[in-house]
Amino acid sequence: MPLWQIFHPVGTFNDKKTKQALAEDITKMYTELHLPAFYVVAQFIPLPVQDIWVGGSTRASNPFIRVFINHVALNMPDEDAVYKRATSRIDTVLKPHVSDKGYDWEYHVGETERRLWKINGMIPPPYRSEEEQEWVKENRAIPYDGAY
Amino acid sequence: MPLWQIFHPVGTFNDKKTKQALAEDITKMYTELHLPAFYVVAQFIPLPVQDIWVGGSTRASNPFIRVFINHVALNMPDEDAVYKRATSRIDTVLKPHVSDKGYDWEYHVGETERRLWKINGMIPPPYRSEEEQEWVKENRAIPYDGAY
Amino acid sequence: MPLWQIFHPVGTFNDKKTKQALAEDITKMYTELHLPAFYVVAQFIPLPVQDIWVGGSTRASNPFIRVFINHVALNMPDEDAVYKRATSRIDTVLKPHVSDKGYDWEYHVGETERRLWKINGMIPPPYRSEEEQEWVKENRAIPYDGAY
Repeated sequence: MPLWQIFHPVGTFNDKKTKQALAEDITKMYTELHLPAFYVVAQFIPLPVQDIWVGGSTRASNPFIRVFINHVALNMPDEDAVYKRATSRIDTVLKPHVSDKGYDWEYHVGETERRLWKINGMIPPPYRSEEEQEWVKENRAIPYDGAY
Repeated sequence: MPLWQIFHPVGTFNDKKTKQALAEDITKMYTELHLPAFYVVAQFIPLPVQDIWVGGSTRASNPFIRVFINHVALNMPDEDAVYKRATSRIDTVLKPHVSDKGYDWEYHVGETERRLWKINGMIPPPYRSEEEQEWVKENRAIPYDGAY
Repeated sequence: MPLWQIFHPVGTFNDKKTKQALAEDITKMYTELHLPAFYVVAQFIPLPVQDIWVGGSTRASNPFIRVFINHVALNMPDEDAVYKRATSRIDTVLKPHVSDKGYDWEYHVGETERRLWKINGMIPPPYRSEEEQEWVKENRAIPYDGAY
């Protein structure tokens, strides 16, 4: 469910280790919230410098990383504190991989309807349900009553 | 309007026939709902295996297909049955092309504001209007009163 | 914040000048609304013709440009006139670069939660605030009281 699309200029995130380190930190952010690890998908999408335009210019000098995150909408209370906590977590994840390297970065999170989300044809079990804990343990989608 | 972005590892969907078969089935799903065929856009976006991370790992053994679908928000009644029918249709479309090949797969549908959607500078006519039926018949955007 | 993803067939937008001209016009649309220029990100994402399917067919003859725009949700009054004005502006931007070249084109705008959007780890200042005017003037994210 969390889908992280990391649009980065060619020349950044260009070896497996660098990508793995970020992918692992992203995953950890969600497993700490008790979600199955395999829910967390990170796609690295390299773009040539001449295909990324910020304010009408390309960024010759400084890499600019644009992250597009998709969450399914949790029925979070609509409170500033909730959003603040969510973005602080994301900042913490990105800091060592982006900010500390001197890259510029921007992200936004889109939220979409949970009932329009499926994995291997199954409806993911309710958050913190017993069935979800099975998915956590097995780290894959397992049929359960109500999955189809 | 329906935009299907099919993010797939290099090595899957690598010939025209395979892509066409899926694109045709996606299109059929919407034309059966009486929408113009040309509304249906499918983009195949291949990513090297080392750029797709699921739960902090790449998928050496098993291809993982991630589909990002965008619909404009229909004023669907907010009922579980409606969502269930919509995802069942999507499952049926994807099954032969993804599931039956043993791929892992996940999708989510985002819904965006219909009034922020245009084709060739025209406002698409209301759902099931006479003007829309013209678009169906001609399979292209045709000016009509209210298009601009 | 405004993120414009321009999915175009290989062979269109293939030189720097053509991309720059569109990126500049997109940027101007938002700076005229008093937003900082560097908020405006345009990504050109070329796809081979055989990876773009419209109504179950590829477009051998005529390029098809699909633009996916993301805005953070402004608390716009929910009025048709507001949406109409917004899409008219987008049409004006795209016309010389797409429509006047005879390309087919489609776009939709997604709107996401402003509180789930950050730049360089900072919360962008409120629209038309003094702090935002500083960001306009410097054309970069500057720490301010409340940025973190």
